[in-house]
Amino acid sequence: MAEYNTNLRLKLPITCIVMEVIVIILFAVFVRYDTDTDARKWHKEKSHDNKSNYENDFYFRYPSFQDVHVMIFIGFGFLMTFLQRYGFSSVGFNFLIAAFSLQWATLMQGFFHGMHNGKIEIGVERSGVHSLFVTGSIFTVRFTLTLGRLMLTLPSDKTVKPSVVPSLHQAKDAGGSMTIHIFGAYFGLGVTRVLYRPNLDKSQHKNCSVYHSDLFAMIGTIYLWMFWPSFNSAITAEGDDQHRTAMNTYYSLAACTLATFAISAVVNHEGKLDMVHIQNAALAGGVAMGTAGEMMLTPVGSMVVGFLAGIISTLGFKYLTPILEEKFHVQDTCGVHNLHGMPGVLGATVGTITASLASAEVYGEGMKDVFPDIYEGKTTPFKQAMWQGLSMGVTMGIASIGGILTGLLLKVPIYATPPDTMCFEDNIYWEVPGEEDSHQELAAVRTEEVEKPLNG
Amino acid sequence: MAEYNTNLRLKLPITCIVMEVIVIILFAVFVRYDTDTDARKWHKEKSHDNKSNYENDFYFRYPSFQDVHVMIFIGFGFLMTFLQRYGFSSVGFNFLIAAFSLQWATLMQGFFHGMHNGKIEIGVERSGVHSLFVTGSIFTVRFTLTLGRLMLTLPSDKTVKPSVVPSLHQAKDAGGSMTIHIFGAYFGLGVTRVLYRPNLDKSQHKNCSVYHSDLFAMIGTIYLWMFWPSFNSAITAEGDDQHRTAMNTYYSLAACTLATFAISAVVNHEGKLDMVHIQNAALAGGVAMGTAGEMMLTPVGSMVVGFLAGIISTLGFKYLTPILEEKFHVQDTCGVHNLHGMPGVLGATVGTITASLASAEVYGEGMKDVFPDIYEGKTTPFKQAMWQGLSMGVTMGIASIGGILTGLLLKVPIYATPPDTMCFEDNIYWEVPGEEDSHQELAAVRTEEVEKPLNG
Amino acid sequence: MAEYNTNLRLKLPITCIVMEVIVIILFAVFVRYDTDTDARKWHKEKSHDNKSNYENDFYFRYPSFQDVHVMIFIGFGFLMTFLQRYGFSSVGFNFLIAAFSLQWATLMQGFFHGMHNGKIEIGVERSGVHSLFVTGSIFTVRFTLTLGRLMLTLPSDKTVKPSVVPSLHQAKDAGGSMTIHIFGAYFGLGVTRVLYRPNLDKSQHKNCSVYHSDLFAMIGTIYLWMFWPSFNSAITAEGDDQHRTAMNTYYSLAACTLATFAISAVVNHEGKLDMVHIQNAALAGGVAMGTAGEMMLTPVGSMVVGFLAGIISTLGFKYLTPILEEKFHVQDTCGVHNLHGMPGVLGATVGTITASLASAEVYGEGMKDVFPDIYEGKTTPFKQAMWQGLSMGVTMGIASIGGILTGLLLKVPIYATPPDTMCFEDNIYWEVPGEEDSHQELAAVRTEEVEKPLNG
Repeated sequence: MAEYNTNLRLKLPITCIVMEVIVIILFAVFVRYDTDTDARKWHKEKSHDNKSNYENDFYFRYPSFQDVHVMIFIGFGFLMTFLQRYGFSSVGFNFLIAAFSLQWATLMQGFFHGMHNGKIEIGVERSGVHSLFVTGSIFTVRFTLTLGRLMLTLPSDKTVKPSVVPSLHQAKDAGGSMTIHIFGAYFGLGVTRVLYRPNLDKSQHKNCSVYHSDLFAMIGTIYLWMFWPSFNSAITAEGDDQHRTAMNTYYSLAACTLATFAISAVVNHEGKLDMVHIQNAALAGGVAMGTAGEMMLTPVGSMVVGFLAGIISTLGFKYLTPILEEKFHVQDTCGVHNLHGMPGVLGATVGTITASLASAEVYGEGMKDVFPDIYEGKTTPFKQAMWQGLSMGVTMGIASIGGILTGLLLKVPIYATPPDTMCFEDNIYWEVPGEEDSHQELAAVRTEEVEKPLNG
Repeated sequence: MAEYNTNLRLKLPITCIVMEVIVIILFAVFVRYDTDTDARKWHKEKSHDNKSNYENDFYFRYPSFQDVHVMIFIGFGFLMTFLQRYGFSSVGFNFLIAAFSLQWATLMQGFFHGMHNGKIEIGVERSGVHSLFVTGSIFTVRFTLTLGRLMLTLPSDKTVKPSVVPSLHQAKDAGGSMTIHIFGAYFGLGVTRVLYRPNLDKSQHKNCSVYHSDLFAMIGTIYLWMFWPSFNSAITAEGDDQHRTAMNTYYSLAACTLATFAISAVVNHEGKLDMVHIQNAALAGGVAMGTAGEMMLTPVGSMVVGFLAGIISTLGFKYLTPILEEKFHVQDTCGVHNLHGMPGVLGATVGTITASLASAEVYGEGMKDVFPDIYEGKTTPFKQAMWQGLSMGVTMGIASIGGILTGLLLKVPIYATPPDTMCFEDNIYWEVPGEEDSHQELAAVRTEEVEKPLNG
Repeated sequence: MAEYNTNLRLKLPITCIVMEVIVIILFAVFVRYDTDTDARKWHKEKSHDNKSNYENDFYFRYPSFQDVHVMIFIGFGFLMTFLQRYGFSSVGFNFLIAAFSLQWATLMQGFFHGMHNGKIEIGVERSGVHSLFVTGSIFTVRFTLTLGRLMLTLPSDKTVKPSVVPSLHQAKDAGGSMTIHIFGAYFGLGVTRVLYRPNLDKSQHKNCSVYHSDLFAMIGTIYLWMFWPSFNSAITAEGDDQHRTAMNTYYSLAACTLATFAISAVVNHEGKLDMVHIQNAALAGGVAMGTAGEMMLTPVGSMVVGFLAGIISTLGFKYLTPILEEKFHVQDTCGVHNLHGMPGVLGATVGTITASLASAEVYGEGMKDVFPDIYEGKTTPFKQAMWQGLSMGVTMGIASIGGILTGLLLKVPIYATPPDTMCFEDNIYWEVPGEEDSHQELAAVRTEEVEKPLNG
């Protein structure tokens, strides 16, 4: 059946090689080392400014850069291994897409946010931290799409969007509540709505975990949880801003975790905890801190936000996801709306409120880093808050429409799509090894049984 | 049966929500950003002291802060996944308790160790590194308690103890040989003694590992091993002290690992290695370096201590644990006494000896950071050693008595406790997914057998 | 059978204890803290040079030091867990050897590269980063040897080799394309050739993965991939050099990953991806950046090299490994030649070419760090390139001959060697726990069957 052709033999290699060759050509033309990475330029600046090698940006960004990598490659990769037969695809395709996206994002970031003399200059901050953000954005989108379907998501993300909606430049969103989570979630839901599979329940027996697959998934969850403070603080200004963003995210996540455990037990008829909630909703406190994390939200403010995020997210998994599927034909298999959508909206709302309260008394000279336009008198806290709120709405709109259009594009039957009965299954894309010995023994037991009558 | 009521539906949510609300209220009243985290204060200090953003404490503490997190959440969480059906509880409850403890510890640290104008000021050092120590302390306690019993351990720990026994302020114990390991172990053993379950052997078939669960546990072990140098050095003075503590711990762990493998093979009748030893005793070198790690112990001194710790700990697992259970009715399921108790005593003893040898010739101006009282002439190396030794004894006493009292408190039948036959089992607190396919097939095989007579 | 005596009861403990005691004695005689680690010396230097504690080397090396540890202990340890019954040995023996090697390497580094007044001075850079390199070297060697055979590899490595071939001092090889990967691979292949086991196919049913063992192996792969930039940059000069090496390695790995997925799909008849390729070949981009990583290779240059490395490595796994075994009797079970050998040669070649192009225009004052001899006029880019090429050839020669000699030595039947039928099996060295419940149930099913006739 042509429409169910999932053979990757030509499509995947051609896609990978063509994309990589394009990227390599663009790198050859546009990308150069930045000052902190280039031998000649760094030594020139060092002697000119009387700097020491210890002041190289590397030492102040690289640990966060690595933390964010662990989130992307281990965290998101293993988060989805909870499916009993989707571990290879989860970790493997996550690996492939991340490796491509970080290259692509370097180019996008450069094209839209600052060429120097026609060149994109890269170093650990630019190419690393910035582009990982983009990668994060892509993953959110990807989640809804990937379950057993080959995803060819365009990296439509925060690097592109601000250029489309110039006004949004003024909104602050360092940890990406809007540009990553809201955008990703509603884009993904848009795609999923169009690609609705009424017979997906034929694969439902695969859409569940086994004991050890849930433990693998917890590796993903815990790494995402631990390093979310690094993620939110990765591109905020140096000094107090990075410090404060990390601390706010940290306390938000802690409070969120308690809320998640509480609600998970209370909504279960036997009072048992549900691994799906723990694996996902406990992270909502990080999502909700994506906008206001760098602001003077106070530790207690962060905890209240995290606590609410955990409640909303867990309730969403329990009650909203089934409604979305039955009533709205949106198959949110991974709970993107619960982990990224609603907590993202909460985060953007908190950012709006917190911005409206910005005062010189609270921020002092630090206002310059957090709200430069207010500091320079170009805007007021009230107007800043308006931009924040507007930005949230515009992001949701663009994301939803973009998702629907992308979904329609993906319906063109040139892409490899598995049949409804083969979703959530590694076997269609991977050489899957034989089972544990027990299976062989089972086979042996059965064979004996069959053979008995013959022998008897 | 009321006494075996393990339903979490009300108890867990109420506990979580009440605790979190209390913490949030206390944070609202007492907790503020510290200078390095607050926008106004940092920029004021920066311009006043002519500092650069790169001198923010964030850059010098955050990598260790993250390493210690990995230890707590991944290391301790996965260390206990060796039990075949206790992985969810191990990782999950570890996650919950850590998330709560880090908030609680922020408050305790602040209340007992330094309010500024009636406020607790937090930043990456204070709220992070310090409170994680407390978390570490709680875990040690928790180990003995958690196996299938809902734990409600009070965070009675190093933040509280020094205030109870003021004299102990003068004892050095940066990595917590005494305040974390000895305290945790003997507290835990005290509790366990009171909660002795004579029929626990009914759950013994669950108290063992399967092949893959042991591999998950090794993730925990390896992370604890790698990042123990960060743990011990997390709160020592900046500069040479952190550097030296990390190096001493590193070499101690390396020597300990060789001792562990050696003894594990020699005590086995077939000369085979035992995963329980490798998973636990190889870490004893980190425990034993908790007091003297920051002192001028020399690299070879560290290795000798680590080597002894590995020997003692492995022998303890092999020979002492069965004796503790049979003779003393202490069911030390996780070997807390072997990993934390005895190596902690060794570490405290080494600290005592090393302190007695402190001389101006060896420490130079560095004496100020390691032994400020000796530096200022307030005490002598001999007296310092006396304080160290006294501190060890007092810690053991308080811990044991506190543990016994806590055990008696926990006997009050208001807590959820599983029956003896259901210990070491996730199923009582978690929605556990279906088994691997093999089970279904087995069921099928069995069904066929049953049906055969009917059909035949 | 004496020759198949795999009982570790005496051999392992004696080896461990004797080696550790020797190391401890050597440490006692030779090893001291370096200036940044010693209390007296650091405070003296600090006040003399008007330094702050924040300028201690610890803060600039420790994060990379920890990343490299994660690679060695988690990365290499778990990479080999793909074998269904070799996980304990992979993680466990990796742990033991690494713990020993880091001590041994501290001594070797010191003896060959700089005693101060007859003492080896250690700190995070020296004892840590340097010795981990050595550890990395040992692992490469080990890979070929370990599959079910007790390995007693001598730490013959980069610390020793440069002293044997003094000319090689002038060749640059910060990330070890030559000194680690080429040396390790050809040494290992030499040993393997001598230890050829014609009947190894009797163990072939163990030499394969099961579903979850492949996921454990991916933990290893992903950590190696993420932290390879830290590995290659760990000992390059501070500032732009470390920064540039990390960025070059990063982009090389990204391009390599796309090539690996592409080739893996295209060489499979069904177009399915092969986990063995993803787990290994995706890392070849890091190996290939070991020599030129610190040079001004440009981002696009790094990507081209990584892309080629991925292609070569994947093709090697598919086509070359079977030829090596059948035609040349080299049983490269882990694909060392594909991951370390060929990409190492590629990396050394790229280093040679890049060195020949070094110009003052491109490097400016940075030439001093990268090519000090060219900077000082002692040599020319052309001559430097000659040294690089010569170094590659000499390394291959010494490694192969050394490997063959070591193989002959290992044939002396004093070592524990498992029979051909017991390779790739944990059970010979480890207490292996019972299987999952399914096995017990299976046993029960079988027992019932057997008992039926008796009851019937």
